[in-house]
Order: sequence, then C-alpha cells, then structure tokens
Amino acid sequence: MGRWEPNARGRLERAALALYRERGYERVTVAEIAREAGLTERTFFRHYADKREVLFGGSAALQEFLVGKVAAAPADTSPIELVVAALAATGEVFDERRDRARQRQTVIDAHPELRERELIKLATLATALAGALRERGVEESAAILAAQAGIAVFQVAFVRWLADGERDMAELVRGAYEELRTVTAGG
Amino acid sequence: MGRWEPNARGRLERAALALYRERGYERVTVAEIAREAGLTERTFFRHYADKREVLFGGSAALQEFLVGKVAAAPADTSPIELVVAALAATGEVFDERRDRARQRQTVIDAHPELRERELIKLATLATALAGALRERGVEESAAILAAQAGIAVFQVAFVRWLADGERDMAELVRGAYEELRTVTAGG
Repeated sequence: MGRWEPNARGRLERAALALYRERGYERVTVAEIAREAGLTERTFFRHYADKREVLFGGSAALQEFLVGKVAAAPADTSPIELVVAALAATGEVFDERRDRARQRQTVIDAHPELRERELIKLATLATALAGALRERGVEESAAILAAQAGIAVFQVAFVRWLADGERDMAELVRGAYEELRTVTAGG
Repeated sequence: MGRWEPNARGRLERAALALYRERGYERVTVAEIAREAGLTERTFFRHYADKREVLFGGSAALQEFLVGKVAAAPADTSPIELVVAALAATGEVFDERRDRARQRQTVIDAHPELRERELIKLATLATALAGALRERGVEESAAILAAQAGIAVFQVAFVRWLADGERDMAELVRGAYEELRTVTAGG
C-alpha cells in the first residue's frame, strides 16, 4: 500500500519495455508489467495512468529541463542559441539512456497511435520552449520560429543518436543545427 | 441516392461551420449538418467520415498541392526555396477562403482534440514535403530540416493571415521566411 518502493518508476519502465519487446505492446497488460517489476498494480497506477504513459512518462521532466535551461542562460544569448544549447544539454540525461530510448522507439515506430502521441509531445515541447523564450522578452514570432526550428534540429539529432554508437547528443544537436543554418540560408 | 448534388461538399462545409459557431461543435449532429445544407445524411457520408472530418477535409488536397509544387519547380531551386515557394503558392487556394478559415480556426482553437488533430495534420504535411524533396534528390536530413522549418514558417504566416485583412498568404509566407533566416542565423 503505502510502502516505499525504491526506484519503482524505473523498474516499471524497464519491465514494460522488456515485455513490449517480447510480447508486443498491444498484448501486454498493466498487471503483467507490475508483476514483472515485482510491484503491485496499485504501485503502477501511482506512477503511470496507463501502459501508454510508461512510454511518455519522461515528457514533463524533459519539458521542465528545457524550460529551465532557457531561463537560466546568459542574458545576451540569441533565441536560437538558447534553444539549441538547451537541447544539446539533454545529453546530460539522454546519453545514459540510449539503450532504453532505442527499445522505446521501436515500440513507438510500430504503432501509429503512439507515433501521433510522440508528435503531440514534440509540438507541446515546442510550445513550451516558445513560452520560455517569450518570458525572456523574445518577440512572439521569433520565439515560435526558434522553438520549432529547434525541435526540427532535435528530431534529426535524435534519430542519429539512436542509430549512433559513439557521438553524444550535444555533438549531434550542434551538427544538426549547423545543417539547419545551411538549409535556411537557402544556398 | 445517386443524385448529383452540385457542390455538396462545399455546402456541407459551410453548413457545418455555421452550426458549429451557432450551437457549439460538440452539440451539432451529422443529421443537422445535412439538413442545414439541404442534403441527406447519406450524401454527407459520401463526402466526410464524420463531423470532425469536415474541418480537415482539405488536408489531402493541400498536401497534394504542396507536393505537386515542389515536384514541378525549376531544377536549380534550393530545398528551402522549394518549400517556401510551395507554401507561398497556397494563397491561390487560401486567399479566397479567409472567412471560412477563420470560422474553422475558432472551432479548432476551442477544442483540444481538434488542436491535436491539426498538429498531426501539420506533421503529416512536413513528412510529405520532406518526401517530395527526397524525390528531387535532396539528402534526407536536409529534406527533413527544410520541410519542418517550412511548416514553422507556414504556421506563423497562417496565424497572421487569419488576423490580417490585407496581406495575402504569399507575402506573409515570404515575410515569415525572412524572419526564420534571421532567427536561425543566430545573430
């Protein structure tokens, strides 16, 4: 009931990803995830609303992380640099989780409704980043363009990061940003 | 039954938008939309899967339009210019429909599930544009970045176009693209 379960959230996530891979996302139940993690269903529902949210449980923390980075950056940073630096800093969290991120992506790629959920997550992140830029006094359309261009950079970097065994997120985000600059310059 | 109904699709759209505004989207039924348009429910379902799709019935045509413009452009056009020119050309269709687009947007803005549907539509357009660029031999990440940056430009231009009484879509898309160039240059 009220027992303290050390790292219950992480154990549930790992159990869910293992089961989704072995048996297929649609066939796995919350009861099975809890059992695999050695926890109760009640504990599951303290951490996640349903089995889909295990895959998206990090969204709020990621958003908070990005918004915090934008808010804390030096005063004279340009809007796109604020966004790119925040995205590059996600390596602090992501780089240790590459295997789990790959497992998660395999599940998402196989299910259109999860892909849609992922797109909405990214759009929500863009809106939050634009809001964080506005808080710093960036004009509205510049804030939207910088945030959305940043999310495009992140998507390109993220796909490479999943496929790559070596380069870390910061390097891949910086590389994709350089490509964006070349592309938008219209050369 | 098999009767030919002149411009049934447009009449249904106009009737739906009028009813959504007067009575609220969630309270309107397909039967009422058909009656308001002077058509049968059977005719409604020949054109739209449900009352939500009346709001998104133009998506496939818009996608086809954009992909066609990208495919037909001169050979030496840069990827971002291909995308921006295609988006600017949507004025050929949109500029005559500004009032209807405003009515539609008011309904969408008031309903989170419709806003999500709109985000997915835009992401789908970005994917289609990236595919059209790839068809022209553009490298994959450049195609994705140009397409997604283009959709960001379009979103900024579209909001202004709805609010604006004067400037046409082409001018607003070009203006937002100039802003994107300034933003991504990171100045």
